[in-house]
Amino acid sequence: MIIDIINKKANKYELTKEELETIFIGYLKDEVKDYQMSAFLMAICINDMSDSEVFALTDIFIKSGDVLDLSFIDGIKVDKHSTGGVGDKTTLIVAPLVASCNVPVIKMSGRGLGYTGGTIDKLESIPGFNVNLTEEEIKKQASDIGIVITSQTRDLTPLDKKVYALRDVTATTNSIPLIASSIMSKKIAGGADKIVIDIKVGNGALIKTEEEAKRLESLLIKIGSYYQKEVKTVISDMNRPLGHNIGNRLEVLEALDVLENKEKGKLYDLSIELASKMVSLGKEISESDARKEVIENLENGKALNKFKEFVKYQNGNIENLSIDAKVYNIKANREGVLKDINALNIAKLCEYLGAGRKNKDDKIDYNAGIIIKKEIGEEVKEGDILASIYTNIDNPIFNLERIFEIF
Amino acid sequence: MIIDIINKKANKYELTKEELETIFIGYLKDEVKDYQMSAFLMAICINDMSDSEVFALTDIFIKSGDVLDLSFIDGIKVDKHSTGGVGDKTTLIVAPLVASCNVPVIKMSGRGLGYTGGTIDKLESIPGFNVNLTEEEIKKQASDIGIVITSQTRDLTPLDKKVYALRDVTATTNSIPLIASSIMSKKIAGGADKIVIDIKVGNGALIKTEEEAKRLESLLIKIGSYYQKEVKTVISDMNRPLGHNIGNRLEVLEALDVLENKEKGKLYDLSIELASKMVSLGKEISESDARKEVIENLENGKALNKFKEFVKYQNGNIENLSIDAKVYNIKANREGVLKDINALNIAKLCEYLGAGRKNKDDKIDYNAGIIIKKEIGEEVKEGDILASIYTNIDNPIFNLERIFEIF
Repeated sequence: MIIDIINKKANKYELTKEELETIFIGYLKDEVKDYQMSAFLMAICINDMSDSEVFALTDIFIKSGDVLDLSFIDGIKVDKHSTGGVGDKTTLIVAPLVASCNVPVIKMSGRGLGYTGGTIDKLESIPGFNVNLTEEEIKKQASDIGIVITSQTRDLTPLDKKVYALRDVTATTNSIPLIASSIMSKKIAGGADKIVIDIKVGNGALIKTEEEAKRLESLLIKIGSYYQKEVKTVISDMNRPLGHNIGNRLEVLEALDVLENKEKGKLYDLSIELASKMVSLGKEISESDARKEVIENLENGKALNKFKEFVKYQNGNIENLSIDAKVYNIKANREGVLKDINALNIAKLCEYLGAGRKNKDDKIDYNAGIIIKKEIGEEVKEGDILASIYTNIDNPIFNLERIFEIF
Repeated sequence: MIIDIINKKANKYELTKEELETIFIGYLKDEVKDYQMSAFLMAICINDMSDSEVFALTDIFIKSGDVLDLSFIDGIKVDKHSTGGVGDKTTLIVAPLVASCNVPVIKMSGRGLGYTGGTIDKLESIPGFNVNLTEEEIKKQASDIGIVITSQTRDLTPLDKKVYALRDVTATTNSIPLIASSIMSKKIAGGADKIVIDIKVGNGALIKTEEEAKRLESLLIKIGSYYQKEVKTVISDMNRPLGHNIGNRLEVLEALDVLENKEKGKLYDLSIELASKMVSLGKEISESDARKEVIENLENGKALNKFKEFVKYQNGNIENLSIDAKVYNIKANREGVLKDINALNIAKLCEYLGAGRKNKDDKIDYNAGIIIKKEIGEEVKEGDILASIYTNIDNPIFNLERIFEIF
């Protein structure tokens, strides 16, 4: 029976919802084995899924666990998702910025695996910050200040988690239908009414080409429409890291720089774009009107104040964000123009320095990370500092040429 | 690293021998997990393999275990392989027939899984028959009577066995390159100089279409040529069972009927064809000359005598082959012409009756099986006996319509 379903997908036939339920729910119950699911996932990666298969799979993921009801908060709940990038601290900027425009932001995140930490890890790098709120605490905080970011209280989409962990070790991550159903099921189970999704494209991202990004974009919007959840997307570059700082506490510091109007550039631009789309969806106004309000609230300090209010409400102490680590400098080995900074290799270096986790029980060094000191296009002289490395590893080893390209 | 290799095949790139070694030898050592190998095998099933990948994989399979040296026997050692069919007892006929023509036959078989037993199981259904010979016993018997069929004394192609068991439960059996490398590695490790392969095609076989059979044929010959082992093939029908009897001891009885010149038809024809190709290869004579000798030795009783000599040498008692089972008759439920007999469904019924094994420790009922009483094209009346069922199950359930088609 399971063999027949796998065979059908291997032979490019469309599966019914019942067949998808049989294999996926069987997998959740451990009746379908890892080795059967991985063969099936590989068949999906190569032979693709139809739209109705993707809708069915999204539904199966959602129903595999709890579904949050955020109706205790007034107004439209807008969530934001990023497909994952190096140095992506936009949530830390966008969430308070949107909340400062009176659009509630209630985010429940899981702890991710990866080269650098997830949003929950970044927030936990703030001394005292509490990411373990009860449902009562979440309700009170949402009603008091309109912004909450906490780890999951319920078991959302457990099937997606189980499938994702298997995909990670079987070279079956690279499937647009699987990525789309994973993202959308998580957001819908998380109680969002509308969703803004930042699709990262480039060597430092899961999605490597513009073509794949467009396909993913179209599929996310279709799934949203199937569930009557409006979806807006941004496709953004991830060949280079976003911003200058990579590593958990270092990223909080850079987010503060943006909120304090001290930094412009790509991180600033993307944050404004994402926040504008969220405010536009949450207030049902045009994106250009939303954009004006967003920029105003960034410039007048309301977003910064909301960030401070939010961190304080969750017991974080923002006054004490010094980096407790040894510093090593990466220096240019010749004169020239800085042509490129490789996001993937920066990420791998960060993991090595202690900023990420491979297994879910690994401990993260919140202090570890990198600050990039030069901009793309800038002229550098031999011996110029290109980046500073923060780590508690003695004499870290790194390969300059794999990160910085100087011509 | 393993992920990169799986990814490469998933993206249709050709793998190097080193990459194939890394993943397959890693799998034999349990360093590569079942769920990684099954994803990889599915990528092979869908994206195929190049000839050089197939040669490399065959080599890896062969070198994963012992390789037999049959040089202690004079002359060219010709082996025969069947891709597996329902009622296929040709080895029981062909082996003594070929040996009676003075071409030595030394077959070392593993116990197979399947709806009905393998050659070793069929031989074990003969009371007293010893399939566990030592290497010394094999040598002596080969030199005394020129025919030995025994279970494997050495660990031949253990990697193929491990991969095969996984393919069976992950819908990855249906790959011509995987089938070809599995067959050829077993035969080459088994010490054959030349090989005759019977490719079964139809609903009762692994290979369902003529096109796939042609592809397999071509690949088997290419692998043979790579190893300088001449390969001859037969493509034979497996939409219907071969012969009348299915089930271990019942098949021995039918083989005896052919050897005693009591039965002509498809089983007889195929046995003559396979034996002729083996004798042609073993004596380096034309197939038509070989055919004359083969038919002569069947008609003059030399093949039958060789069979009796062989069974006796391995302690079997051919005098006592009565079937100890209850008999149930399958009767025609209407008048008409017998149009078809479904091989796959007959095989499933046989397994249910006790003739096969699903797991390697399952016990086989040697007496269980079916004798088909009518020929295709024959007119039948309502109530005519179409087949007799032999089993120790009380009141076995079967579906007449799924086995016999009467119009």
